[in-house]
Amino acid sequence: MRETPANKRHLEQNLQPIRELLGRRELLEKLSVTPDSSRKELVSDLIARQTLADLANKLDKLHNADIARLLETLPLDDRHFVWRQLADERAGDVLWQVADGVAETLISETSHERLKAICLPLEVGDLLQLAHLLPGDVLDAVLGTRDPGERSWLRASITYPEDTVGSLMSPDVLVAPATATFKTILKMLRKAGDFPDQTDKLFIVDERHRLLGELLLTRLLLHRPRNPISEAVSTDAIAFEPGDSIASAAQAFERYDLVSAPVVDERGRLIGRLTVDDVMDYVREEAEEDAFLREGLHADEDLFGPVWTSARRRWLWLGLNLATALVASRVIGLFEGSIEKLVALATLMPIVASIGGNTGNQTVALIVRGLATGMFGAGNVRYLALKEIGIAAINGTMWGSVMGLITFLLYRDTGLAAVMGVATLLNLVVAAMVGTGVPLLLNRLGRDPAYGSSVLLTFTTDSMGFLIFLGLATVFLLV
Amino acid sequence: MRETPANKRHLEQNLQPIRELLGRRELLEKLSVTPDSSRKELVSDLIARQTLADLANKLDKLHNADIARLLETLPLDDRHFVWRQLADERAGDVLWQVADGVAETLISETSHERLKAICLPLEVGDLLQLAHLLPGDVLDAVLGTRDPGERSWLRASITYPEDTVGSLMSPDVLVAPATATFKTILKMLRKAGDFPDQTDKLFIVDERHRLLGELLLTRLLLHRPRNPISEAVSTDAIAFEPGDSIASAAQAFERYDLVSAPVVDERGRLIGRLTVDDVMDYVREEAEEDAFLREGLHADEDLFGPVWTSARRRWLWLGLNLATALVASRVIGLFEGSIEKLVALATLMPIVASIGGNTGNQTVALIVRGLATGMFGAGNVRYLALKEIGIAAINGTMWGSVMGLITFLLYRDTGLAAVMGVATLLNLVVAAMVGTGVPLLLNRLGRDPAYGSSVLLTFTTDSMGFLIFLGLATVFLLV
Repeated sequence: MRETPANKRHLEQNLQPIRELLGRRELLEKLSVTPDSSRKELVSDLIARQTLADLANKLDKLHNADIARLLETLPLDDRHFVWRQLADERAGDVLWQVADGVAETLISETSHERLKAICLPLEVGDLLQLAHLLPGDVLDAVLGTRDPGERSWLRASITYPEDTVGSLMSPDVLVAPATATFKTILKMLRKAGDFPDQTDKLFIVDERHRLLGELLLTRLLLHRPRNPISEAVSTDAIAFEPGDSIASAAQAFERYDLVSAPVVDERGRLIGRLTVDDVMDYVREEAEEDAFLREGLHADEDLFGPVWTSARRRWLWLGLNLATALVASRVIGLFEGSIEKLVALATLMPIVASIGGNTGNQTVALIVRGLATGMFGAGNVRYLALKEIGIAAINGTMWGSVMGLITFLLYRDTGLAAVMGVATLLNLVVAAMVGTGVPLLLNRLGRDPAYGSSVLLTFTTDSMGFLIFLGLATVFLLV
Repeated sequence: MRETPANKRHLEQNLQPIRELLGRRELLEKLSVTPDSSRKELVSDLIARQTLADLANKLDKLHNADIARLLETLPLDDRHFVWRQLADERAGDVLWQVADGVAETLISETSHERLKAICLPLEVGDLLQLAHLLPGDVLDAVLGTRDPGERSWLRASITYPEDTVGSLMSPDVLVAPATATFKTILKMLRKAGDFPDQTDKLFIVDERHRLLGELLLTRLLLHRPRNPISEAVSTDAIAFEPGDSIASAAQAFERYDLVSAPVVDERGRLIGRLTVDDVMDYVREEAEEDAFLREGLHADEDLFGPVWTSARRRWLWLGLNLATALVASRVIGLFEGSIEKLVALATLMPIVASIGGNTGNQTVALIVRGLATGMFGAGNVRYLALKEIGIAAINGTMWGSVMGLITFLLYRDTGLAAVMGVATLLNLVVAAMVGTGVPLLLNRLGRDPAYGSSVLLTFTTDSMGFLIFLGLATVFLLV
């Protein structure tokens, strides 16, 4: 048995030497630029040539998926250098496998001529993944070389929005007519030669290409040739429409352990197929995306992309956060008179605000996950909101008392201690209410609750924390 | 074609009527408790009986995976009520499919006798998923009923830690000896009757059960009976060892589009198999887990579980956050004299702290994802750190100037405005450094960077924000 390339440990073992070779990139690049002939140059030329051959050799041995991974993890200059070393046929298969943000940097570096050459040999399903990133003239040229069936399929599929089944389906389906026998099916399969990846079933259609059922390969394998094939066909296929969201399809794949599933149009005609590998990619990317969106990052943020692009992408978010912080600070501004009289208020107020933000973000994380996995129906949202408020009340009473005690120990002021304790409790309850309400509201408004919930929450818990604490102090201690 | 149960829309359509029936749970529960015979009771009894039958009927029509989903989304009392209605054979298949936290509440509600009855008919791979949650005597009793092969497999598999391939593998493998012919394999398969789920290949082993290669069913199907079977066997199988991390296995499944893969022991003997459905579950759970860990929630937090359990689980986190907020507040305490002299400092300081926390958490999210997906080698970490600091410098200069300007407009104080601008810039740079360093450090120390990075970061950006701003103000404006 060969060494398992699957193992991450082994993958890093393969990538690390390449990274080291790239440490000498400047030497390598000089090679192609200056044909110098002084003796010293000759030696370094020789080394460079050898290094380049070594690099090509190491790249040759990598799986295309691993090259995609390598490109994603290389600093920009190294990434483009490796990209230029790849043969066109390979480059295409790598290009659709890298993350969108990385694909963008590669595409912008590449001449339209090369892009056309790269995309020419791509399978139509893979091409679909790239279509929205390619320059218009490249896409048109590539489409022009396809046969009319593929071309019209691609044209139609490009129009499906990003998060729908239609944008992720592939046209590679094995189809048999309802009239087929075991023998004709086997003959057809042998003629086709190879199976598309992740083929676990073929689809049975009527004369108008409407889906009638599916035939698992395992059942075909066990089928006794003489029995009618209809015995082995299951007619309760789980089918999707191109407009269905991938999220719901992913849930179905998980729940029913699917490997592939048919996609049908509104008249029930088979137009493609969804496979578990694409669904799994989606599930992982979606989850990562949520973590990024929550921090105001772009979903396809390119870790090793250009500094300026990243900085520009984060401007707006930073500005938004500054604006909310500024508003919260104006709340403090209202109480500058109180703070001048009792400066301890300035010291204690960030604690009340911060603890509210903390608890609230826990609630937000719970609700956002619940929404993402479709856990909420009519009956259970109220239960959940009450539960979160209950938790806040319990923990607020406990930690409010602790904070009151600490405040007393620090300042020997019973009134201040009481205000601190009560403000902590109240802000925790506010945080639980806002933490439940904001994601649900954003979702109701048709927005992604992962994006924006945290800002809105922190804004509220900060402002309310300051208001409650300074307000209580002003009323009970200073008036 | 049947209505597609796969569609989430349709699933909710099936679950909603059940939720509504459960709105009358109290009525239903009375039924089993009070055998009363007054006329009024008789009528309500009749309704209850009918409702109960209706409920049973609706539950009958659901897929077990969908019942699991229903239980996860029901408030505690409803959840236990439905759980009690399930027949034992069904209950087992539901139990291993619910999230761990939910399974715990169900198991604690169930008599050991029923648990034994429930677990008895389970497949050994499914039982493995439950084993760590079952009470010792139940597990022993269930193990006692298994044949020695299954028992020893289970005993061995239970010992593998939670995040390893060994804890997720299943023993259902189709195996053929290297000497097998096309005919004997087909005979063997027909004799076995049904295939385990997600079977796309069978494994070829030698006489000591060592893995020699794998045979894709698709290739078997296309194989011409007279040719030697070895032609169709591929010998470069991607195999895992039980101690490999699931995370690395999941990456391999994604990169190489696997449906199933063999698991071998240190001597290369085939001991089980990993399938894409389990890997996908893991990928999703892991991603959700990270979002939860980042907020200090338990990975298997049960959204609809008991209030007290949830409150208790969050105590420590809240305490930890209070402690860090308290320390940051002591930094302010050092400057109470300055604040008394210039109360605007109290108003402005939370902005500096908050914007630092914000930027820093963006960096943390990026690094945590990079670590989770194994993106960092020796060469690229330094590049990344410099990039993040570069972004902070760019955005800090820009927004620092804006904040300086706003401060001037608010307070007409050039010195204060300058201090505000510089403090904003400096705290952003601190945030970028800490945001890169903390997750990498935690990872180096063998800890999960998702857990704790945010607290440590916010702690630093708060304290440093206060220190830089108040320190600069004290030195340049007040001395």
